Amino acid sequence: MIVETLEAHFDSLALDCGEVIAPVRVAYETYGELNAAKSNAILILHAFTGDAHAAGICPETGKPGWWESMIGPGKAFDTNEYFVICSNVLGGCSGTTGPSSINPETGKLYAMEFPLITIKDMVRLQKMLIDSMGIEKLLAVSGGSMGAMQALEWAVDYPEAVAASIPIAGTWRHSAQQIAFNEVGRQSIMADPEWNGGYYDEEKGPGRGLAVARMIGHITYMSDESMREKFGRRLREKEKFGFDFEIDFEVESYLRYRGKQFIGRFDANSYLYITKALDYFDISNGKASLAAAFEHTTARFLLISFTSDWLYPSYQSQEIVSALRSRNRDVAYVELASNYGHDAFLVDVGEQTEVVKGFLASTLKAISKGKS
Amino acid sequence: MIVETLEAHFDSLALDCGEVIAPVRVAYETYGELNAAKSNAILILHAFTGDAHAAGICPETGKPGWWESMIGPGKAFDTNEYFVICSNVLGGCSGTTGPSSINPETGKLYAMEFPLITIKDMVRLQKMLIDSMGIEKLLAVSGGSMGAMQALEWAVDYPEAVAASIPIAGTWRHSAQQIAFNEVGRQSIMADPEWNGGYYDEEKGPGRGLAVARMIGHITYMSDESMREKFGRRLREKEKFGFDFEIDFEVESYLRYRGKQFIGRFDANSYLYITKALDYFDISNGKASLAAAFEHTTARFLLISFTSDWLYPSYQSQEIVSALRSRNRDVAYVELASNYGHDAFLVDVGEQTEVVKGFLASTLKAISKGKS
Repeated sequence: MIVETLEAHFDSLALDCGEVIAPVRVAYETYGELNAAKSNAILILHAFTGDAHAAGICPETGKPGWWESMIGPGKAFDTNEYFVICSNVLGGCSGTTGPSSINPETGKLYAMEFPLITIKDMVRLQKMLIDSMGIEKLLAVSGGSMGAMQALEWAVDYPEAVAASIPIAGTWRHSAQQIAFNEVGRQSIMADPEWNGGYYDEEKGPGRGLAVARMIGHITYMSDESMREKFGRRLREKEKFGFDFEIDFEVESYLRYRGKQFIGRFDANSYLYITKALDYFDISNGKASLAAAFEHTTARFLLISFTSDWLYPSYQSQEIVSALRSRNRDVAYVELASNYGHDAFLVDVGEQTEVVKGFLASTLKAISKGKS
Repeated sequence: MIVETLEAHFDSLALDCGEVIAPVRVAYETYGELNAAKSNAILILHAFTGDAHAAGICPETGKPGWWESMIGPGKAFDTNEYFVICSNVLGGCSGTTGPSSINPETGKLYAMEFPLITIKDMVRLQKMLIDSMGIEKLLAVSGGSMGAMQALEWAVDYPEAVAASIPIAGTWRHSAQQIAFNEVGRQSIMADPEWNGGYYDEEKGPGRGLAVARMIGHITYMSDESMREKFGRRLREKEKFGFDFEIDFEVESYLRYRGKQFIGRFDANSYLYITKALDYFDISNGKASLAAAFEHTTARFLLISFTSDWLYPSYQSQEIVSALRSRNRDVAYVELASNYGHDAFLVDVGEQTEVVKGFLASTLKAISKGKS
């Protein structure tokens, strides 16, 4: 299934920080067919460095989407039944307006002139996209990691527009440890002299700082167990230690490769802006409690977490479940056993598929009951 | 108690990598009095960025030692009873020969001409120090983290010279995840243009890369819980988000401060060499199994780990305990409840003190029984 990335354009977007971005572009893809009643749309929300290409094959690169395992005919998000949409987030670098877009006021790339954004801002822009398609109510919103935060934000900010929310491997607010990892990534980028306050005028860009930031990320996405299973202490193309600072271990080789690979596909300034949006995220901001944040939600919820995910540990999902239950909301929760750490929502999708399928089916049933 | 740092000098030290360092200097301190039989000596082994100044007050800086809470009159390592020794490790930057020492072959600082070292090399040098003091058998060797690795290595390499070994919050080999964190730290330093292949000829040195490496370290030394308790999402001297890339959160301020502070006290090249020694560490290297590594040990063992330590998790100590039990060694193990993560062995020493005291007393009793 070849899938083209599409573009939507909007006049302006008002941000939480008080500034306005104008104009705004959104890159998105769709899979499956929107039905006549426009009642079968599911919005997929990507994680930190993801993009709009969630499924199918990209005609330019030939690459499958980042959630190819979950979206398609007969899959969890079954494109025979549902119309699935995925858009690149605000602040990203894969088609949606972000720091690497042109600032119409100066005619140059925004760089650090781009205003700070929030998860709420990302969702506000997604709402404009959904409105532009004439979809009044999404059957579901779902995503892992940062996608889970957006799925929560949708249910809270636009209760009338979401029938079901499926936050996976997420949290309701970034913890000190989560902020700390992001801060180290940012400092690594900003410490690179080639970043130089925004870097687009530089020859090279902060590739070395960005690679180090990405290496840290990869450690947090895996688990102690999965790293042991995948690499252990295996040496890389040698039988004994080199006694030098070249690569000794497979795991070193993997991290260096992943770091370098990342430079080619992600913008360092987007890294700064999106991590900051993550750190600002607290769905209870300005509310008396987490439960109070769900005061006006009407969606059904399915939360999923993974046993070995130490970046977004299960207790953070469980706190959301408790808060929803305290407000008598319709909420299901499963903690899935997996060794894959935070990456599990991307790579260990067997049980996740069954759980999501069942929940979507029960959502359809609940909706048809409500109508009858 | 004012304590001066002393120096010992040796002609040469043969290394695991096949090279020889000559001459070699060791910085060390002692606390308490060596008895006439020279039977009350305890060697304390420091962690990664530690030094010889384990206890007392440094006359130059006025600073207490890094394990002041554990060493002194009436404390766990009671200086009324024991003669306590601590030396800076080989490859360090606090008095013992390392990359920032003068290479007699060139008359310049070693920098990256310094040979790669191992935990075994560090212990070999400590043995020369102990021999030079005329101590044939240490009552105990003990340390946390990298100190735990040295405490194991001592018991394995010099069984005749160690009555008791107390490895705390350690491991018997560096895991893929532990190697990964070290590798990111190294890449951060080496990515800094001011490192430039060894940096001593540079004006500034790789302070920014070193600070980022240290920030990563600090996250791994704390726990999710202790970071939540200490920082949570508290803002730093502001009431709302700055919507810029200045410091918003307390935890960001803390990490940046710790990173900067570290530049002044630690050498980036020592960081590279010591992390590499940690990554090479596997007490079962060249043995059929972990248990086989303990084939010739005669020491009694006390292992301690902490519930919230995710950098050196309890299961790694438990694997050592199992291996020792399978060889019918005298081994005690306690997992202490603490929220402080890996730092617990430095900051949460109440129960640790009681456990170590009891174990040392029982070691004295076992020795006197053996003699009678």
